[in-house]
Amino acid sequence: MNEFELVEKLSRLLPTNESVVVGIGDDCAVLDMGLPGRLQLFKTDAVVEGVHFAADAAAEKVGHKALARCLSDIAAMAGTPTAALITIGLPSRFQFARVRAIYAGMSALARRHEVAIVGGETTASPERMVISVSLLGWVEKGRCALRSGARAGDAIFVTGELGGSLSGKHLKFEPRLDEARWLARHFPLHAMIDLSDGLAGDLNHVLKASRVGAELLADAVPVSRTAKRAFQEKTSKKPPLLAALTDGEDFELLFTIAATDAVRLRESWQKKFPGLRLSCIGKITAGRGMAVRDKGRVRPLTAHGYVHFA
Amino acid sequence: MNEFELVEKLSRLLPTNESVVVGIGDDCAVLDMGLPGRLQLFKTDAVVEGVHFAADAAAEKVGHKALARCLSDIAAMAGTPTAALITIGLPSRFQFARVRAIYAGMSALARRHEVAIVGGETTASPERMVISVSLLGWVEKGRCALRSGARAGDAIFVTGELGGSLSGKHLKFEPRLDEARWLARHFPLHAMIDLSDGLAGDLNHVLKASRVGAELLADAVPVSRTAKRAFQEKTSKKPPLLAALTDGEDFELLFTIAATDAVRLRESWQKKFPGLRLSCIGKITAGRGMAVRDKGRVRPLTAHGYVHFA
Repeated sequence: MNEFELVEKLSRLLPTNESVVVGIGDDCAVLDMGLPGRLQLFKTDAVVEGVHFAADAAAEKVGHKALARCLSDIAAMAGTPTAALITIGLPSRFQFARVRAIYAGMSALARRHEVAIVGGETTASPERMVISVSLLGWVEKGRCALRSGARAGDAIFVTGELGGSLSGKHLKFEPRLDEARWLARHFPLHAMIDLSDGLAGDLNHVLKASRVGAELLADAVPVSRTAKRAFQEKTSKKPPLLAALTDGEDFELLFTIAATDAVRLRESWQKKFPGLRLSCIGKITAGRGMAVRDKGRVRPLTAHGYVHFA
Repeated sequence: MNEFELVEKLSRLLPTNESVVVGIGDDCAVLDMGLPGRLQLFKTDAVVEGVHFAADAAAEKVGHKALARCLSDIAAMAGTPTAALITIGLPSRFQFARVRAIYAGMSALARRHEVAIVGGETTASPERMVISVSLLGWVEKGRCALRSGARAGDAIFVTGELGGSLSGKHLKFEPRLDEARWLARHFPLHAMIDLSDGLAGDLNHVLKASRVGAELLADAVPVSRTAKRAFQEKTSKKPPLLAALTDGEDFELLFTIAATDAVRLRESWQKKFPGLRLSCIGKITAGRGMAVRDKGRVRPLTAHGYVHFA
């Protein structure tokens, strides 16, 4: 049983109440706590030594990543983060300097986004370090971007470049908070998600939540130079397109808007964020499932990124 | 370096912002998110297999404890919990039935207190299970009970009976949410905390935050029958009073109110909560430090419960 199956089975057990606008199944939980004009966002995310970061990874970067992953989920809702709690599980013989550097990395990122770190706890984790971040934020009512709003005919966009993140970007990426809020303020976003599992897997989450399908254009997927070089230099066996579809940990935004808004978006994006690539990678289809159009041929694509060749 | 020293050193590094009413150093963080008449409470707490529960502990009880600890912190602020996120770290060969039973234990408790479980995540924790709970709640402005408000002359009260919790109570205690809210509604509470580290340690937190001292009455400390029996039957070497002062995991409330309110409190408590013992265990003093008055002699008490005999 994988994580998604487990969560799906468990989610049927769980209690809800009248404050819940969106529970399990989106990037953040969305709550209406009675705040005029605003909804609250609530998210938790953990990184585990040996799973999400190497035991010898630079401590500041480990702290940065732990918080940045959670901030990226707030970005995926077009929200603003407010306050974080940090739970750190430490082996009994931890080095204080390393723990302090982890907090310094988190704090620097938190300051840039005006997030308060308001507590948490340290606990014993005998074998390996675990850092769990809880984040509270908010979004204006009517501007919350869910996974479930994609419509047939929508254009699908992604920010940045994809693939090869594990060779470095995953420890230093900047969550797309400003970009997401700007998008939600200027365009009717139909659906949005941040790319953590990989383009194919995360697009599939959007498609399932929205009950639609998608057709991607192979040439339009923005493959990172890192992924291309790794294949050329044979440090990776993954063809670059497959790396962009499946590597994961890109922490870019994927969103859909009406095709009629696509040209205006490209123009204003270019002016607002000239340093960050924005790519239209395909369209939402009424028929379910994912496909990739490559040199005139259309091939089915699975959530794990496997392109079936005819 | 222990947990408290680590947190104290780290807390100086951490960023804050204008939403923060109380950051690190109380049972919950307190935030003003702009909600009229209300403050928000934010808390996270983790339990680790082999540290907070045995690997063979009943799964429903493990789930119950994981959530109940966090609810107890909301109770300590006289608050109302709203929504929880659950992070569960699982070894690769976990049993689905056990995980489901953990969630069932949490869900049953959540339902009783009208708390929604709105998501979380599962993550790999190769060696042992870890459950981290994030909780969001609220408290009416002006009714939030902090650790820092105890005043010289206050009467110190505790609910329930103390000591010996690890022989069973720690897996099935009921957080004192109703009691705490009733107290805050009917009495000017000066300070409150929930007893997780043990009476001596937790009282010490209140005293440090409030910059006062305390004198306890040995005879007034409500020692549990479990702690008394364990000493009589020689399954524990701890004298019962010492067990009540230091065992920890009681999850009862300790609070202080003006001595002039003490009689009225006793009378109305008796009517409202006839099944739950309430004990006045001593008084707050202007002089710092803790002491225990026992058969006419006053002895210093440390946070670790060591009573220095003269």
